[in-house]
Amino acid sequence: MKIYLAGPEVFLSDPIAIGRRKVSICESHGLAGLYPMDNTVDLHAADASLAIFRGNEAMMDMSDAIIANLTPFRGPGADAGTVYELGYMAGRGKLCFGYCNDPGLYSERVGRFSTITKQDGRLVDAEGLTVEDFGLPDNLMMIHALDLHGHPLVLPRDRPADVWHDLTAFEECVRLAARRLGAES
Amino acid sequence: MKIYLAGPEVFLSDPIAIGRRKVSICESHGLAGLYPMDNTVDLHAADASLAIFRGNEAMMDMSDAIIANLTPFRGPGADAGTVYELGYMAGRGKLCFGYCNDPGLYSERVGRFSTITKQDGRLVDAEGLTVEDFGLPDNLMMIHALDLHGHPLVLPRDRPADVWHDLTAFEECVRLAARRLGAES
Repeated sequence: MKIYLAGPEVFLSDPIAIGRRKVSICESHGLAGLYPMDNTVDLHAADASLAIFRGNEAMMDMSDAIIANLTPFRGPGADAGTVYELGYMAGRGKLCFGYCNDPGLYSERVGRFSTITKQDGRLVDAEGLTVEDFGLPDNLMMIHALDLHGHPLVLPRDRPADVWHDLTAFEECVRLAARRLGAES
Repeated sequence: MKIYLAGPEVFLSDPIAIGRRKVSICESHGLAGLYPMDNTVDLHAADASLAIFRGNEAMMDMSDAIIANLTPFRGPGADAGTVYELGYMAGRGKLCFGYCNDPGLYSERVGRFSTITKQDGRLVDAEGLTVEDFGLPDNLMMIHALDLHGHPLVLPRDRPADVWHDLTAFEECVRLAARRLGAES
Protein backbone atom coordinates (compact mmCIF):
# COMPACT_ATOMS: atom_id res chain seq x y z
CA MET A 1 0.00 0.00 0.00
CA LYS A 2 1.19 3.49 -0.86
CA ILE A 3 1.10 6.44 1.48
CA TYR A 4 1.73 10.08 0.54
CA LEU A 5 4.04 11.90 2.96
CA ALA A 6 2.91 15.53 3.10
CA GLY A 7 4.62 18.17 5.18
CA PRO A 8 6.80 21.26 5.29
CA GLU A 9 9.94 19.10 5.43
CA VAL A 10 10.48 20.15 1.82
CA PHE A 11 11.36 23.61 3.22
CA LEU A 12 14.05 22.36 5.63
CA SER A 13 17.75 22.66 4.85
CA ASP A 14 17.96 18.85 4.64
CA PRO A 15 14.72 17.93 2.80
CA ILE A 16 16.11 14.78 1.17
CA ALA A 17 17.56 13.28 4.36
CA ILE A 18 14.37 13.70 6.41
CA GLY A 19 12.35 12.25 3.51
CA ARG A 20 14.56 9.17 3.42
CA ARG A 21 14.05 8.65 7.15
CA LYS A 22 10.27 8.87 6.69
CA VAL A 23 10.25 6.44 3.77
CA SER A 24 12.44 4.05 5.74
CA ILE A 25 10.02 4.10 8.70
CA CYS A 26 7.16 3.34 6.30
CA GLU A 27 9.12 0.39 4.87
CA SER A 28 9.68 -1.06 8.32
CA HIS A 29 5.87 -1.15 8.71
CA GLY A 30 5.24 -2.70 5.29
CA LEU A 31 4.17 0.54 3.56
CA ALA A 32 5.58 2.37 0.56
CA GLY A 33 6.02 6.05 1.47
CA LEU A 34 5.85 8.51 -1.43
CA TYR A 35 7.75 11.71 -0.66
CA PRO A 36 7.34 14.89 -2.79
CA MET A 37 11.11 15.34 -3.23
CA ASP A 38 11.30 11.92 -4.92
CA ASN A 39 9.96 13.57 -8.09
CA THR A 40 12.75 14.72 -10.38
CA VAL A 41 12.21 18.39 -11.15
CA ASP A 42 14.65 20.88 -12.69
CA LEU A 43 14.23 23.74 -10.21
CA HIS A 44 15.75 26.20 -12.69
CA ALA A 45 13.22 25.45 -15.44
CA ALA A 46 10.62 28.14 -16.14
CA ASP A 47 7.78 25.75 -15.28
CA ALA A 48 9.44 24.24 -12.18
CA SER A 49 6.55 25.01 -9.81
CA LEU A 50 4.01 23.52 -12.21
CA ALA A 51 6.15 20.39 -12.55
CA ILE A 52 6.26 20.08 -8.75
CA PHE A 53 2.48 20.44 -8.58
CA ARG A 54 1.90 17.81 -11.26
CA GLY A 55 4.37 15.43 -9.58
CA ASN A 56 2.74 15.82 -6.17
CA GLU A 57 -0.76 15.40 -7.57
CA ALA A 58 0.25 12.24 -9.45
CA MET A 59 1.78 10.84 -6.25
CA MET A 60 -1.40 11.61 -4.32
CA ASP A 61 -3.57 10.01 -7.00
CA MET A 62 -1.59 6.77 -6.78
CA SER A 63 -1.57 6.69 -2.96
CA ASP A 64 -4.07 4.95 -0.68
CA ALA A 65 -3.58 7.35 2.21
CA ILE A 66 -1.86 10.53 3.39
CA ILE A 67 0.15 11.31 6.50
CA ALA A 68 0.16 15.09 6.88
CA ASN A 69 2.66 16.87 9.11
CA LEU A 70 0.54 19.71 10.51
CA THR A 71 3.24 21.15 12.79
CA PRO A 72 2.83 24.96 12.74
CA PHE A 73 4.84 26.50 9.92
CA ARG A 74 5.68 30.21 9.69
CA GLY A 75 2.76 31.20 11.89
CA PRO A 76 0.25 29.75 14.35
CA GLY A 77 -0.98 26.95 12.08
CA ALA A 78 -0.04 24.30 9.55
CA ASP A 79 1.74 24.77 6.21
CA ALA A 80 -0.67 25.72 3.42
CA GLY A 81 0.68 23.25 0.87
CA THR A 82 0.22 20.40 3.33
CA VAL A 83 -3.28 21.56 4.22
CA TYR A 84 -4.22 21.71 0.52
CA GLU A 85 -2.97 18.15 0.09
CA LEU A 86 -4.92 16.90 3.11
CA GLY A 87 -8.06 18.43 1.61
CA TYR A 88 -7.33 16.95 -1.80
CA MET A 89 -6.88 13.45 -0.37
CA ALA A 90 -10.05 13.74 1.75
CA GLY A 91 -11.90 14.84 -1.39
CA ARG A 92 -10.54 11.80 -3.26
CA GLY A 93 -11.88 9.54 -0.50
CA LYS A 94 -8.42 8.44 0.66
CA LEU A 95 -7.55 7.62 4.28
CA CYS A 96 -6.26 10.65 6.18
CA PHE A 97 -3.72 10.65 9.00
CA GLY A 98 -1.91 13.61 10.50
CA TYR A 99 0.30 14.73 13.35
CA CYS A 100 1.46 17.99 14.89
CA ASN A 101 4.67 18.26 16.90
CA ASP A 102 3.34 21.26 18.84
CA PRO A 103 0.71 19.99 21.29
CA GLY A 104 -0.64 23.47 22.12
CA LEU A 105 -4.04 24.88 21.23
CA TYR A 106 -4.49 27.06 18.14
CA SER A 107 -5.87 29.97 20.17
CA GLU A 108 -2.82 29.89 22.46
CA ARG A 109 -0.43 29.84 19.50
CA VAL A 110 -2.08 32.87 17.91
CA GLY A 111 -1.19 34.69 21.14
CA ARG A 112 2.50 34.21 20.32
CA PHE A 113 2.09 36.29 17.16
CA SER A 114 -0.63 38.77 18.05
CA THR A 115 -2.31 40.38 21.06
CA ILE A 116 -5.61 38.62 21.73
CA THR A 117 -8.51 40.40 23.39
CA LYS A 118 -12.14 39.52 24.08
CA GLN A 119 -14.78 41.55 22.22
CA ASP A 120 -18.51 40.82 22.33
CA GLY A 121 -17.87 37.29 23.58
CA ARG A 122 -15.35 36.33 20.92
CA LEU A 123 -11.55 36.28 20.95
CA VAL A 124 -10.03 38.65 18.40
CA ASP A 125 -6.47 39.26 17.28
CA ALA A 126 -4.81 42.67 16.83
CA GLU A 127 -6.41 42.99 13.37
CA GLY A 128 -9.91 42.41 14.80
CA LEU A 129 -10.20 38.95 13.24
CA THR A 130 -11.91 36.24 15.28
CA VAL A 131 -9.57 33.64 16.79
CA GLU A 132 -11.12 30.15 16.47
CA ASP A 133 -11.60 28.97 20.03
CA PHE A 134 -12.98 25.43 20.08
CA GLY A 135 -10.10 23.99 22.15
CA LEU A 136 -8.60 22.43 19.01
CA PRO A 137 -4.93 22.30 17.94
CA ASP A 138 -5.63 23.98 14.56
CA ASN A 139 -8.42 25.05 12.19
CA LEU A 140 -11.45 22.80 12.64
CA MET A 141 -11.57 21.80 8.96
CA MET A 142 -8.28 19.88 9.18
CA ILE A 143 -8.87 18.50 12.67
CA HIS A 144 -12.31 17.08 11.91
CA ALA A 145 -11.28 15.91 8.43
CA LEU A 146 -8.85 13.62 10.24
CA ASP A 147 -11.54 12.57 12.76
CA LEU A 148 -14.02 11.63 10.03
CA HIS A 149 -11.81 10.55 7.11
CA GLY A 150 -9.08 8.60 8.90
CA HIS A 151 -7.81 8.93 12.45
CA PRO A 152 -7.75 11.83 14.95
CA LEU A 153 -4.66 14.07 14.91
CA VAL A 154 -1.67 12.45 16.65
CA LEU A 155 0.03 14.74 19.18
CA PRO A 156 3.13 14.19 21.35
CA ARG A 157 2.61 14.54 25.09
CA ASP A 158 5.37 17.18 25.18
CA ARG A 159 6.74 19.37 22.42
CA PRO A 160 9.91 17.63 21.19
CA ALA A 161 13.15 19.62 21.32
CA ASP A 162 13.48 19.46 17.53
CA VAL A 163 9.97 19.73 16.09
CA TRP A 164 11.24 19.37 12.52
CA HIS A 165 13.26 16.18 12.96
CA ASP A 166 11.50 14.27 15.73
CA LEU A 167 9.54 11.48 14.00
CA THR A 168 7.89 9.84 17.03
CA ALA A 169 4.39 11.14 16.22
CA PHE A 170 5.00 10.43 12.52
CA GLU A 171 5.86 6.80 13.31
CA GLU A 172 2.66 6.51 15.36
CA CYS A 173 0.74 7.61 12.25
CA VAL A 174 2.58 5.01 10.17
CA ARG A 175 1.62 2.33 12.70
CA LEU A 176 -2.03 3.40 12.59
CA ALA A 177 -1.99 3.52 8.78
CA ALA A 178 -0.38 0.07 8.52
CA ARG A 179 -3.07 -1.36 10.80
CA ARG A 180 -5.89 0.26 8.80
CA LEU A 181 -4.42 -0.65 5.43
CA GLY A 182 -3.72 -4.22 6.55
CA ALA A 183 -0.02 -3.98 5.78
CA GLU A 184 1.49 -4.60 9.23
CA SER A 185 4.36 -7.04 8.75
CA MET B 1 -25.72 25.84 -10.38
CA LYS B 2 -24.37 25.95 -6.82
CA ILE B 3 -21.11 27.51 -5.82
CA TYR B 4 -19.40 27.18 -2.43
CA LEU B 5 -18.13 30.48 -1.03
CA ALA B 6 -14.98 29.71 0.97
CA GLY B 7 -12.98 32.33 2.81
CA PRO B 8 -11.93 33.83 6.11
CA GLU B 9 -14.97 36.15 6.08
CA VAL B 10 -16.37 33.87 8.79
CA PHE B 11 -13.73 35.42 11.10
CA LEU B 12 -14.76 39.02 10.46
CA SER B 13 -16.86 41.01 12.94
CA ASP B 14 -19.69 41.08 10.35
CA PRO B 15 -19.59 37.55 8.90
CA ILE B 16 -23.30 37.39 8.05
CA ALA B 17 -23.46 40.73 6.24
CA ILE B 18 -20.48 40.02 3.98
CA GLY B 19 -21.88 36.56 3.22
CA ARG B 20 -25.19 38.08 2.16
CA ARG B 21 -23.39 40.45 -0.20
CA LYS B 22 -21.51 37.53 -1.76
CA VAL B 23 -24.68 35.45 -2.19
CA SER B 24 -26.45 38.45 -3.72
CA ILE B 25 -23.64 38.94 -6.28
CA CYS B 26 -23.91 35.24 -7.18
CA GLU B 27 -27.68 35.62 -7.65
CA SER B 28 -27.21 38.55 -10.02
CA HIS B 29 -25.10 36.23 -12.21
CA GLY B 30 -27.57 33.34 -12.10
CA LEU B 31 -25.68 31.27 -9.49
CA ALA B 32 -26.68 30.01 -6.05
CA GLY B 33 -23.93 30.88 -3.57
CA LEU B 34 -23.63 28.61 -0.54
CA TYR B 35 -22.01 30.40 2.40
CA PRO B 36 -20.71 28.49 5.47
CA MET B 37 -22.56 30.73 7.93
CA ASP B 38 -25.87 29.74 6.32
CA ASN B 39 -25.69 26.47 8.27
CA THR B 40 -27.51 26.68 11.59
CA VAL B 41 -25.10 25.67 14.34
CA ASP B 42 -25.43 26.15 18.10
CA LEU B 43 -21.99 27.62 18.82
CA HIS B 44 -22.34 26.78 22.51
CA ALA B 45 -22.95 23.07 21.96
CA ALA B 46 -20.13 20.69 22.89
CA ASP B 47 -19.85 19.45 19.31
CA ALA B 48 -20.19 22.87 17.65
CA SER B 49 -16.95 22.59 15.64
CA LEU B 50 -17.90 19.14 14.35
CA ALA B 51 -21.32 20.43 13.33
CA ILE B 52 -19.65 23.28 11.41
CA PHE B 53 -17.36 20.80 9.65
CA ARG B 54 -20.25 18.53 8.67
CA GLY B 55 -22.29 21.48 7.45
CA ASN B 56 -19.44 22.85 5.34
CA GLU B 57 -18.63 19.43 3.87
CA ALA B 58 -22.28 18.84 2.97
CA MET B 59 -22.40 22.24 1.27
CA MET B 60 -19.24 21.45 -0.70
CA ASP B 61 -20.59 18.06 -1.73
CA MET B 62 -23.72 19.64 -3.18
CA SER B 63 -21.83 22.43 -4.97
CA ASP B 64 -20.56 22.42 -8.55
CA ALA B 65 -17.70 24.81 -7.90
CA ILE B 66 -15.81 26.76 -5.25
CA ILE B 67 -14.71 30.40 -5.09
CA ALA B 68 -11.93 30.59 -2.49
CA ASN B 69 -10.86 33.88 -0.94
CA LEU B 70 -7.10 33.37 -0.61
CA THR B 71 -6.33 36.85 0.76
CA PRO B 72 -3.53 36.43 3.34
CA PHE B 73 -4.96 35.74 6.77
CA ARG B 74 -2.98 36.05 10.01
CA GLY B 75 0.36 35.63 8.25
CA PRO B 76 1.92 35.72 4.78
CA GLY B 77 -0.52 33.28 3.14
CA ALA B 78 -4.13 32.15 2.87
CA ASP B 79 -6.45 30.94 5.65
CA ALA B 80 -5.97 27.24 6.39
CA GLY B 81 -9.66 26.35 6.45
CA THR B 82 -10.14 27.91 3.02
CA VAL B 83 -7.07 26.12 1.67
CA TYR B 84 -8.37 22.80 2.99
CA GLU B 85 -11.69 23.42 1.24
CA LEU B 86 -9.99 24.31 -2.05
CA GLY B 87 -8.08 21.02 -1.86
CA TYR B 88 -11.23 19.09 -1.00
CA MET B 89 -13.13 20.52 -3.97
CA ALA B 90 -10.21 19.87 -6.34
CA GLY B 91 -10.11 16.29 -5.05
CA ARG B 92 -13.84 15.95 -5.71
CA GLY B 93 -13.30 17.09 -9.29
CA LYS B 94 -15.26 20.33 -8.87
CA LEU B 95 -14.40 23.59 -10.68
CA CYS B 96 -12.01 25.77 -8.68
CA PHE B 97 -11.88 29.57 -8.68
CA GLY B 98 -10.01 31.83 -6.29
CA TYR B 99 -8.93 35.39 -5.66
CA CYS B 100 -6.52 37.22 -3.40
CA ASN B 101 -6.96 40.88 -2.49
CA ASP B 102 -3.23 41.29 -1.88
CA PRO B 103 -1.49 41.29 -5.27
CA GLY B 104 2.04 40.91 -3.81
CA LEU B 105 4.31 37.89 -4.10
CA TYR B 106 4.45 35.28 -1.35
CA SER B 107 8.20 35.73 -0.87
CA GLU B 108 7.74 39.50 -0.41
CA ARG B 109 4.96 39.00 2.11
CA VAL B 110 7.08 36.63 4.21
CA GLY B 111 9.54 39.54 4.50
CA ARG B 112 6.88 41.50 6.43
CA PHE B 113 6.89 38.87 9.18
CA SER B 114 10.45 37.56 9.17
CA THR B 115 13.96 38.54 8.11
CA ILE B 116 14.80 36.82 4.83
CA THR B 117 18.38 36.00 3.89
CA LYS B 118 19.99 34.02 1.08
CA GLN B 119 21.80 30.81 2.05
CA ASP B 120 23.29 28.35 -0.43
CA GLY B 121 21.20 29.79 -3.25
CA ARG B 122 17.85 29.61 -1.43
CA LEU B 123 15.87 32.24 0.45
CA VAL B 124 15.41 31.37 4.12
CA ASP B 125 13.40 32.99 6.90
CA ALA B 126 14.66 33.72 10.42
CA GLU B 127 13.95 30.10 11.44
CA GLY B 128 16.10 28.76 8.57
CA LEU B 129 13.07 27.51 6.62
CA THR B 130 13.13 27.89 2.84
CA VAL B 131 10.90 30.65 1.45
CA GLU B 132 9.15 29.44 -1.70
CA ASP B 133 10.42 31.71 -4.46
CA PHE B 134 8.71 30.89 -7.77
CA GLY B 135 7.30 34.40 -8.29
CA LEU B 136 3.84 33.21 -7.21
CA PRO B 137 1.30 34.95 -4.94
CA ASP B 138 1.10 31.96 -2.53
CA ASN B 139 2.07 28.31 -2.09
CA LEU B 140 2.32 26.61 -5.48
CA MET B 141 -0.18 23.88 -4.59
CA MET B 142 -3.09 26.33 -4.40
CA ILE B 143 -1.95 28.51 -7.29
CA HIS B 144 -1.55 25.63 -9.74
CA ALA B 145 -4.66 23.83 -8.47
CA LEU B 146 -6.56 26.88 -9.73
CA ASP B 147 -4.60 26.88 -13.01
CA LEU B 148 -5.37 23.23 -13.70
CA HIS B 149 -8.74 22.66 -12.03
CA GLY B 150 -10.58 25.87 -12.88
CA HIS B 151 -9.19 29.31 -13.61
CA PRO B 152 -5.95 31.10 -12.62
CA LEU B 153 -6.03 33.14 -9.41
CA VAL B 154 -7.80 36.48 -9.84
CA LEU B 155 -5.81 39.43 -8.46
CA PRO B 156 -6.68 43.15 -8.28
CA ARG B 157 -4.24 45.50 -10.02
CA ASP B 158 -3.82 47.39 -6.73
CA ARG B 159 -4.45 46.29 -3.16
CA PRO B 160 -7.92 47.62 -2.24
CA ALA B 161 -8.14 49.89 0.81
CA ASP B 162 -10.36 47.36 2.60
CA VAL B 163 -9.09 43.89 1.66
CA TRP B 164 -11.84 42.17 3.67
CA HIS B 165 -14.84 43.96 2.20
CA ASP B 166 -13.82 44.81 -1.37
CA LEU B 167 -15.61 42.27 -3.59
CA THR B 168 -14.34 43.38 -7.02
CA ALA B 169 -12.05 40.36 -7.48
CA PHE B 170 -14.74 38.11 -6.00
CA GLU B 171 -17.27 39.36 -8.56
CA GLU B 172 -14.79 38.67 -11.36
CA CYS B 173 -14.62 35.05 -10.10
CA VAL B 174 -18.42 34.87 -10.09
CA ARG B 175 -18.46 36.11 -13.68
CA LEU B 176 -15.90 33.48 -14.72
CA ALA B 177 -17.79 30.77 -12.87
CA ALA B 178 -21.11 31.76 -14.44
CA ARG B 179 -19.54 31.59 -17.90
CA ARG B 180 -17.99 28.17 -17.23
CA LEU B 181 -21.10 26.76 -15.62
CA GLY B 182 -23.33 28.13 -18.38
CA ALA B 183 -25.49 30.11 -15.95
CA GLU B 184 -24.94 33.64 -17.23
CA SER B 185 -28.31 35.34 -17.30
